[in-house]
Amino acid sequence: MADKKKRRRLDLDSEDENEDNRKILPFKKHLKPDSAILSILQDLTDSIQANLNTNKTLTLSDLSLSSTCREVSDLDLSSVQDAIERLILRITQSILSGSGFAFDVPARSNTNQLYVPELDRIVLKDKTSLRPYSNVSTVRKTTITTRILQLVHQLCLKNIHVTKRDLFYTDVKLFQDQTQSDAVLDDVSCLLGCTRSSLNVVASEKGVVVGRLIFSDNGDMIDCTKMGMGGKAIPPNIDRVGDMQSDALFILLVEKDAAYMRLAEDRFYNRFPCIIVTAKGQPDVATRLFLRKMKMELKLPVLALVDSDPYGLKILSVYGCGSKNMSYDSGNLTTPDIKWLGVRPSDLDKYKIPEQCRLPMTEQDIKTGKDLLEEDFVKKNPGWVEELSLMVKTKQKAEIQALSSFGFQYLSEVYLPLKLQQQDWL
Amino acid sequence: MADKKKRRRLDLDSEDENEDNRKILPFKKHLKPDSAILSILQDLTDSIQANLNTNKTLTLSDLSLSSTCREVSDLDLSSVQDAIERLILRITQSILSGSGFAFDVPARSNTNQLYVPELDRIVLKDKTSLRPYSNVSTVRKTTITTRILQLVHQLCLKNIHVTKRDLFYTDVKLFQDQTQSDAVLDDVSCLLGCTRSSLNVVASEKGVVVGRLIFSDNGDMIDCTKMGMGGKAIPPNIDRVGDMQSDALFILLVEKDAAYMRLAEDRFYNRFPCIIVTAKGQPDVATRLFLRKMKMELKLPVLALVDSDPYGLKILSVYGCGSKNMSYDSGNLTTPDIKWLGVRPSDLDKYKIPEQCRLPMTEQDIKTGKDLLEEDFVKKNPGWVEELSLMVKTKQKAEIQALSSFGFQYLSEVYLPLKLQQQDWL
Repeated sequence: MADKKKRRRLDLDSEDENEDNRKILPFKKHLKPDSAILSILQDLTDSIQANLNTNKTLTLSDLSLSSTCREVSDLDLSSVQDAIERLILRITQSILSGSGFAFDVPARSNTNQLYVPELDRIVLKDKTSLRPYSNVSTVRKTTITTRILQLVHQLCLKNIHVTKRDLFYTDVKLFQDQTQSDAVLDDVSCLLGCTRSSLNVVASEKGVVVGRLIFSDNGDMIDCTKMGMGGKAIPPNIDRVGDMQSDALFILLVEKDAAYMRLAEDRFYNRFPCIIVTAKGQPDVATRLFLRKMKMELKLPVLALVDSDPYGLKILSVYGCGSKNMSYDSGNLTTPDIKWLGVRPSDLDKYKIPEQCRLPMTEQDIKTGKDLLEEDFVKKNPGWVEELSLMVKTKQKAEIQALSSFGFQYLSEVYLPLKLQQQDWL
Repeated sequence: MADKKKRRRLDLDSEDENEDNRKILPFKKHLKPDSAILSILQDLTDSIQANLNTNKTLTLSDLSLSSTCREVSDLDLSSVQDAIERLILRITQSILSGSGFAFDVPARSNTNQLYVPELDRIVLKDKTSLRPYSNVSTVRKTTITTRILQLVHQLCLKNIHVTKRDLFYTDVKLFQDQTQSDAVLDDVSCLLGCTRSSLNVVASEKGVVVGRLIFSDNGDMIDCTKMGMGGKAIPPNIDRVGDMQSDALFILLVEKDAAYMRLAEDRFYNRFPCIIVTAKGQPDVATRLFLRKMKMELKLPVLALVDSDPYGLKILSVYGCGSKNMSYDSGNLTTPDIKWLGVRPSDLDKYKIPEQCRLPMTEQDIKTGKDLLEEDFVKKNPGWVEELSLMVKTKQKAEIQALSSFGFQYLSEVYLPLKLQQQDWL
């Protein structure tokens, strides 16, 4: 039986030599030895670190925009508590002095958003709107705001984390609908000038991480090279994450679960030292915070592997520049300078992805693609504009998984190594 | 500042004594010391273990049903490989002898399903249907079946795991649509008599686990008491999971992410030694396999915490009795004897869940509830019938999070301990 098995494996290996199989794994012959690719990656990391060490990260105040734009920052629990108490004190004084009860809440509508090219992210401008208690149209929202402030104050005292859903259920009668308490929670973040994580309200976790990273989660030391194939679930509360250490040369940000699994099983991070992270689709706040923290503390380049469709690029942009909905916190949620490694529209022809593995774009896809072409954060990067224009022109899209048409391990054994070797990122 | 903080904490503690707060945390006064609750749990575990040690788990052959029902089992890679080769050899012989090319595929339609009360799960009956190549209506499916067998054979040789999506992309031209390759993959499982995991095709992972469990994932030892708040992502491939060790008294199966997070942050598993597991909603195959493996190897009782709505009970039943879609593998996917701990319809009044935290059931909810009442696996358990009837009668549902109306930590500090103390599971 053992002999039989051995024979079969040998047959398989010898197949690698024949013509037929070279057709199945195109471009494999272009691959240089791993040591050559590793030295390319080392150069990339060195340049990023040199850059981060000499160029201080720009902020709104460097651009003299801090008076016209609004940003929040991470505050510790007692500062949040103090901020709430000061706010309530101010309002009490206003009531006692006869000026009435009102919150001056930052506006978060589309017209109050601004993309700042120097920062490469979306920020919130400084328009506010008054929310008086003595007005029929705002009395409910004023009450909800007060209640949320009170609940957050309790969280500070107890030092525990809850979800938005928990918050909603503490007073269903008042909130009526979770969208109402969620919206006011974002208002309260802006109002207090702190991030939502500082309020100890967290989103549910979706992301996983695996590879050359050690970090602490709520006091436990986690070694992500020893997390098997499943990986470590990214903690919902970034404030309990710390002590990051790594010997990785880059961070590989992966859009989808299936590609993540392939790379985790093949222990890609041992061949090319890296940290592999995915939010399994749409980026959630916890994964965005975790990615940013890795990038800033470890000073590593971030390379993104997303589907070749408008949503792939959109996902990349949310990690990179932020979403309009949470622009007030873009400084903390975004990871600057993410490189678009693949799968890019130009890869489809370059890597000879078979026609039947490409999908026709729908009307909606094409519209989304065209809308993206109008966005400042795309325009800023000529390479992205070129790729996206190609996509809209050819009306073709493809998932990362399309690479499986060349064999299940084509992604980890040929496509990614070759991309790295050719420094083929934008 | 430190003094200020201390004073506040003291205020908070002293609040526990006043009348107002006792109203906020109802039933807290009924709680016995933890040691009393722990001894109740120890009895439960002992009885489960005694039961498992004396009563051998029933199988289809014990019930003399193995000739009329079909079940698959876990096979190692070389057995799967041999099974494929034997099948292809048989077909070749059939072709050579002039009898043609056809697969005899087990039928997986609703009419071929059977709930077996003695086993408390849904199984597949033995009806099969012929899939000949020489028939216009089946030629495509026969070709797809052959192709999937070939791909799985490759996976065996390479010993790697892929997703259903990967499999689809290896031959889009033939499969056309992922539902087609998915369906045939299940056929191939039945045909070969092995589980889908034995084919090395895995579903994407969703579940997380935290608490008193140590296990190995792909050779790495994982200590789930040291996984912070995020927990350990449940591996997609159960065959690389092993060496389970635990000093837990029970497994707490949680439907939702938010409740999981509360319990993980409060390290509930340290107060009442347990393993906490969640699939974050609908149970995926990886979480079902993982739960079963824990139950069988550690011989622990499983207590379920789900929403008080028809879907909560349905989710519980999928863990317990299986889904119709994968009935051929119910023996491996189901966890016998899961207890319904909460949130149960009778809890709403018993724990005085405020009216505004209960939600009216929709027409569809009520229909689903009534349909469930007709299911054999519900009828078998009179307690469940009673609860479900109450739900349908009151037309009220509630999420686990509704308990937050008594305070964020009510779930971990009062509700669950009291449930355990009162042995209030069905």
